[in-house]
Amino acid sequence: MERLKTQMAFLLELDKLKSVIRRNHLADGSRLENDAEHSWYFAMAALLLAEHAVEPIDLGRVVRMALIHDIVEIDAGDTFIYDEAAKKDQAEREERAATRLFGMLPEDQARDLLALFREFEEHKTAEARYARAIDRIAAVILNHASAGKSWRLHGVPKERIVAINERIAEGSPALWDYIRELIEDASQRGFIAG
Amino acid sequence: MERLKTQMAFLLELDKLKSVIRRNHLADGSRLENDAEHSWYFAMAALLLAEHAVEPIDLGRVVRMALIHDIVEIDAGDTFIYDEAAKKDQAEREERAATRLFGMLPEDQARDLLALFREFEEHKTAEARYARAIDRIAAVILNHASAGKSWRLHGVPKERIVAINERIAEGSPALWDYIRELIEDASQRGFIAG
Repeated sequence: MERLKTQMAFLLELDKLKSVIRRNHLADGSRLENDAEHSWYFAMAALLLAEHAVEPIDLGRVVRMALIHDIVEIDAGDTFIYDEAAKKDQAEREERAATRLFGMLPEDQARDLLALFREFEEHKTAEARYARAIDRIAAVILNHASAGKSWRLHGVPKERIVAINERIAEGSPALWDYIRELIEDASQRGFIAG
Repeated sequence: MERLKTQMAFLLELDKLKSVIRRNHLADGSRLENDAEHSWYFAMAALLLAEHAVEPIDLGRVVRMALIHDIVEIDAGDTFIYDEAAKKDQAEREERAATRLFGMLPEDQARDLLALFREFEEHKTAEARYARAIDRIAAVILNHASAGKSWRLHGVPKERIVAINERIAEGSPALWDYIRELIEDASQRGFIAG
């Protein structure tokens, strides 16, 4: 019963992820996306696009990574991928957050989730590389759908968009081909400022 | 490439789940929850509480159920579990929605997701029973945390809350014990109208 209470306290803390706001908009441009709904979207995309992964992957582990990858942002906040200044201390802030947040759980679960989070961050495994690719794809397709709302708002030039997203190829060359075309299309339609 | 385009069109359609609003509030009572963030929360709770399932379960299948269980609500809308009138044609509305939405996918994926959705709805397997329990638990703990905001707003009496949620025991007697105490606590604190 003590163990269950600990798990429930963590679950309640997790609700806060619904209030961590990203720089990305929904496809219809109506509002900014939050981390919890993004995590769901990422997990769904990982499920649907698994056949395009360049290496064999344990899809269950990728889905779990998607579900937990942003939990640290409850403490550390969302870091915009095009914000080089904020990215400088991102790893340190997120590591501290991971220790506190996952540390709320029973020791075995804390250890498992911390390891999974670090695996995602280090992108050294096939699962982490595919997961990273999907995380990026989710952002790009919503940016394209919303006529580049977030790209334009933050004045992100095309070269930066390509440079940040070409890492998708490490997880899936097929998906990178698709996304590169989408960025090209966005550029031609005037969805990108630079 | 045709297959990938089909998958991407479905993924874009999925973004609409972020705009389907539930009757439940966030834990802090600040706003209503949407289906996409609820689906993430459900999947996380399923992961964290798996050891309390009464039967052996394939946790990966439960997580996939959690992720897809509300997709039909893009067309069918959210049906409040305490709204008996709306529940009458719920199954019909959702089956029609499932056919259209999953039907956007390549045939093999459409078949798999439709089967998974129906398995969840029919709760005849251990996975579906555990998933149902977790779906209910997520709603109750947020209601309790928000001082019964949704229960009070809709005037749901304690007997109905117990009647609707006691099915949690089919997936996990341990979790039902916990939730029954939480409902009792909510009642004593005046979080329940009736």
